Amino acid sequence: MRPVILGAIGAGRIGKLHAENILRMPEVRLKIITDPFMDDGWARSWGLSTAPDPAAVFSDDEIEAVLIFSPSPLHAEQIIAAARAGKHIFCEKPIALDPGQIRRALKVVAGEGVKLQVGFNRRFDPDFRRVKQAVASGEIGQLYLIKITARDPAPPSTEYVRESGGMFLDMTVHDFDMVRYLSGSEVEEVYAAGTVLVDPAIGEAGDIDTAITTLRLKNGALAVIDNSRQAVYGYDQRIEAFGSKGSITAGNRTPTQTILTTTDGVVADKPLVFFLERYQESFRAEIEEFIRAVREDRETPVTGQDGLASTLIGIAANESLKKGEPVRIAE
Amino acid sequence: MRPVILGAIGAGRIGKLHAENILRMPEVRLKIITDPFMDDGWARSWGLSTAPDPAAVFSDDEIEAVLIFSPSPLHAEQIIAAARAGKHIFCEKPIALDPGQIRRALKVVAGEGVKLQVGFNRRFDPDFRRVKQAVASGEIGQLYLIKITARDPAPPSTEYVRESGGMFLDMTVHDFDMVRYLSGSEVEEVYAAGTVLVDPAIGEAGDIDTAITTLRLKNGALAVIDNSRQAVYGYDQRIEAFGSKGSITAGNRTPTQTILTTTDGVVADKPLVFFLERYQESFRAEIEEFIRAVREDRETPVTGQDGLASTLIGIAANESLKKGEPVRIAE
Amino acid sequence: MRPVILGAIGAGRIGKLHAENILRMPEVRLKIITDPFMDDGWARSWGLSTAPDPAAVFSDDEIEAVLIFSPSPLHAEQIIAAARAGKHIFCEKPIALDPGQIRRALKVVAGEGVKLQVGFNRRFDPDFRRVKQAVASGEIGQLYLIKITARDPAPPSTEYVRESGGMFLDMTVHDFDMVRYLSGSEVEEVYAAGTVLVDPAIGEAGDIDTAITTLRLKNGALAVIDNSRQAVYGYDQRIEAFGSKGSITAGNRTPTQTILTTTDGVVADKPLVFFLERYQESFRAEIEEFIRAVREDRETPVTGQDGLASTLIGIAANESLKKGEPVRIAE
Amino acid sequence: MRPVILGAIGAGRIGKLHAENILRMPEVRLKIITDPFMDDGWARSWGLSTAPDPAAVFSDDEIEAVLIFSPSPLHAEQIIAAARAGKHIFCEKPIALDPGQIRRALKVVAGEGVKLQVGFNRRFDPDFRRVKQAVASGEIGQLYLIKITARDPAPPSTEYVRESGGMFLDMTVHDFDMVRYLSGSEVEEVYAAGTVLVDPAIGEAGDIDTAITTLRLKNGALAVIDNSRQAVYGYDQRIEAFGSKGSITAGNRTPTQTILTTTDGVVADKPLVFFLERYQESFRAEIEEFIRAVREDRETPVTGQDGLASTLIGIAANESLKKGEPVRIAE
Repeated sequence: MRPVILGAIGAGRIGKLHAENILRMPEVRLKIITDPFMDDGWARSWGLSTAPDPAAVFSDDEIEAVLIFSPSPLHAEQIIAAARAGKHIFCEKPIALDPGQIRRALKVVAGEGVKLQVGFNRRFDPDFRRVKQAVASGEIGQLYLIKITARDPAPPSTEYVRESGGMFLDMTVHDFDMVRYLSGSEVEEVYAAGTVLVDPAIGEAGDIDTAITTLRLKNGALAVIDNSRQAVYGYDQRIEAFGSKGSITAGNRTPTQTILTTTDGVVADKPLVFFLERYQESFRAEIEEFIRAVREDRETPVTGQDGLASTLIGIAANESLKKGEPVRIAE
Repeated sequence: MRPVILGAIGAGRIGKLHAENILRMPEVRLKIITDPFMDDGWARSWGLSTAPDPAAVFSDDEIEAVLIFSPSPLHAEQIIAAARAGKHIFCEKPIALDPGQIRRALKVVAGEGVKLQVGFNRRFDPDFRRVKQAVASGEIGQLYLIKITARDPAPPSTEYVRESGGMFLDMTVHDFDMVRYLSGSEVEEVYAAGTVLVDPAIGEAGDIDTAITTLRLKNGALAVIDNSRQAVYGYDQRIEAFGSKGSITAGNRTPTQTILTTTDGVVADKPLVFFLERYQESFRAEIEEFIRAVREDRETPVTGQDGLASTLIGIAANESLKKGEPVRIAE
Repeated sequence: MRPVILGAIGAGRIGKLHAENILRMPEVRLKIITDPFMDDGWARSWGLSTAPDPAAVFSDDEIEAVLIFSPSPLHAEQIIAAARAGKHIFCEKPIALDPGQIRRALKVVAGEGVKLQVGFNRRFDPDFRRVKQAVASGEIGQLYLIKITARDPAPPSTEYVRESGGMFLDMTVHDFDMVRYLSGSEVEEVYAAGTVLVDPAIGEAGDIDTAITTLRLKNGALAVIDNSRQAVYGYDQRIEAFGSKGSITAGNRTPTQTILTTTDGVVADKPLVFFLERYQESFRAEIEEFIRAVREDRETPVTGQDGLASTLIGIAANESLKKGEPVRIAE
Repeated sequence: MRPVILGAIGAGRIGKLHAENILRMPEVRLKIITDPFMDDGWARSWGLSTAPDPAAVFSDDEIEAVLIFSPSPLHAEQIIAAARAGKHIFCEKPIALDPGQIRRALKVVAGEGVKLQVGFNRRFDPDFRRVKQAVASGEIGQLYLIKITARDPAPPSTEYVRESGGMFLDMTVHDFDMVRYLSGSEVEEVYAAGTVLVDPAIGEAGDIDTAITTLRLKNGALAVIDNSRQAVYGYDQRIEAFGSKGSITAGNRTPTQTILTTTDGVVADKPLVFFLERYQESFRAEIEEFIRAVREDRETPVTGQDGLASTLIGIAANESLKKGEPVRIAE
């Protein structure tokens, strides 16, 4: 196995998680991690070299690939800078909220001939991979229906809501990607029914917190996603794919498999609390696959085009919500 | 307990089921059952008196209440005849497919001052009653979302499809009633996305076989129903109600609680095959509650108005499907 | 189908349950039910003829078969009286606590050439029948192990405990029969570890309330039963059969299939409260099979010999408990 | 956090697993790993220093603690050598098969004042910890019963069987430790019913492959363990603790939470294949807790005495099997 040398940009919550995972991979070296507000104690305990500025990564000739974990508004420009420095790129989602900006970044990536992988980590979850396999292998026959439940344990701050691009671009965009991944089909039309039930402040910030989104796929199948910004019992992430030969469901993951039976009932664990716990395996696996793509010079498993496509569905969902009618997805 | 004397019209599959249930109830007498094509062997083994013509029921002064299990197109006129004979009425759903016809029948019922109960049996299912209780008692807090999965094991004949009024009036009408029952709210608007995936012959007969229907309720909550005419693994009937304090789900019922674990996997039973098995308890309970309403002179638990309301949602769903946009429910 | 005319002895809790079930069977007539302390209101509401004395059943030439639901100490003599009257017999378990008494009754039954079925109703439970089928058909391969959990929701009165013959003859005897039924093998040796943990009063009455019983079967397999007189969460009845090709388990039955998820956890229903609810289907099925055996002149599915065999295991378990060592079953 | 420097002895399957886990821990340094037959490619890819002889560990003054992953027959002498070198010790189970040898090693450990932790990793499994917590906190009230199912996916080679000390000392010893851990009580008496059903070659090697073991605990509770050397469907590891206020069960862990429903049934995943997969979290956690004990100078969570106690139960189980009667545990 050829060693791969990486540089990372951003050491916030998600950057730290990825960095610690990378340290556990054989034949991979995280040469440097940059952050203007570095947590030095953390970096020291893991023996990591740091710098405040991403330029330290772009200018290092030994670094073959860049991992972008910085705040979302910086993603597009950093992708462009990394591509121009001739480095392969892993970038957390979203590339940008504006399709024009995404297209500009993708154009530079294509022009420089570097690889780009977008952080739709859920594609690497073992449960959802099993669902994908059941669809792709024909185990459930011709696909009729995909159903996704995705509910957060608690709503974000209204400041976050205002910057997020709205629930469809911030939260449902993962589910749009999942529909495309599982079905292997593009989406043709979207109808979004959304409302504010969890917290009026979310409505005042111009967003919704509860939605049912119906998708018509190009392959003829239907999909439906239900989202909520608040499931008080935890992070609720379930998927069903239903077809001519049967159905496959992925249920929630729980801290333990124990069941307590008392006069109060038969009580199982609540779902894992939030995405860091729920998707810890997929966060590791997506980076492993990115490194494999770099090492073996193969295509990345989630492309820039995938990042763009889900954003376009989100934008159409926003428009459907506003108009109160189904909207076709832009090409 | 005051004895109650009944007459029944119709001894097909559903009429037989109801008649056998009634024989098992204390202080109830099924005096006569009519059918132009009576299965005499069956009637004899249960010791039942029979007649070919429903007039034998209407003209019998001893009979206090009439149970209508005849073919659907006869329901409205038999309701009118029974009401005019001064008898209380239990009628299998639907009263009629045409709202005008339903309204005419309900007018006669109201004018004669008799009781009418419509056969939305699923309201009496123990599992769905538990869901209703969790919503009504506030256990799950303010209602956000109702999700219903209702899939038949196999599609009906195309002859049946042609007469049925379409999937929304034939099949989904039960789910529309369930949304009204669970939420305690009327429906404001419906958007139906439907397609033909199971069998092109269903499309040629002018119907669909796969649908996702989104409902906006007057209380602000949302609901979504997914239907299919064919789930090869059995009769799939699941419900979830989700609110500010949590969620309650009703899963499928199975023949046994056994689990077989071999090299092939951990295998549980498939759902009960079809509605006669799945809803056997609710078929008995709805008649028991009807008899109680008659005996104790109380209101019936499912009124003619309930029959009308779900039909109006079904008609709006058909219109939404045709127009490709959401449709408001007629009052 | 030939009609069958029955007489019943005993209209206590279990007699009423059986009588109401019989009224729901086609081509069966319960001509009379006797009890010295008859609940007349109950008998009237179901239209049943009654008498105080069982002689009314034995002397009625029209009655073909007798159902004995009287207190246990009367069983053996009533079996003998019924057999001498030439009637087929269904008798609730136990025939008697004393093997000598059982053998005398069985001799008369054999001499008179009438059929006898003992009320080991659990053999007719759909879940346990599925387990039996998996063992008998070879689905789980060669049988290695049977595991039974049988826990009551609450201990009986100490008066009951004193008369009961002890936990092994009163409660575990059902599990001994289940081991014989599922394995198709006789039991060779038993080791019982028992103790008093639930209530010292049970110990003072000379009994135990908690036990683990290990059985060696003649076919080489092992079995283990754990019993408790008190599972505060309900009636806990679970079985596993494990073999060379896999394992089959039968879990508890619950009032509904609903699951409530809140901040408190993911809560399913507790098991059905006690044996009348849990085994309602098997109570009906065992009588149906008895009537079929009478009608079609076939052997009954649970014989007097089955009643004797489980009693002999129970007696050996009592001896093992006393001696603190394994004991071989008497032949 | 103070850094801790370790040396490891043994780089077989279990040594590699532990070594890779240690590399992922902050402020811990695995200075050297020894093995006479080192897999050099593996060591290189993780950047590990190696030596053939354990002396390299014992003689290194920088090394504070030794991890013994060598073949079992070497454990006792290596514990003694490490203790004499003044190093804290983590040792895979068993210390030895012979109680005399164990006691000699423990005496040296005590004399040198070093810490010793024995590798009963299952105590660190999150599911079993939850069971322990439910017992210890009184959630299930007074403990009545512990039930453990432990079945391997496939029997070991007969060579292994011959050296293993027999099923009770090799396999059930983990379950004996679990009973002690969960109950917080010593074991008083054991009765073992064992037999050869899986493979006659195991019998010829002087061992059994199927057993039910009943334990009487000093606190009055009972415990029962069922073992098999072959569950064809995978590694079956289940626990139940039952008490006066209820019951808690720990079920199997599976690769995914998906369920496939087709005409063949409702199919969930089989259990994880074997102990390396099933207990991967507990293998990591036991070392983390050992390092914490070293770093913070606290007692280790599994002591040498724990290693001895379970061996004594295993020896009594062997004797019970031979004699066919219950045997008291030696002190």
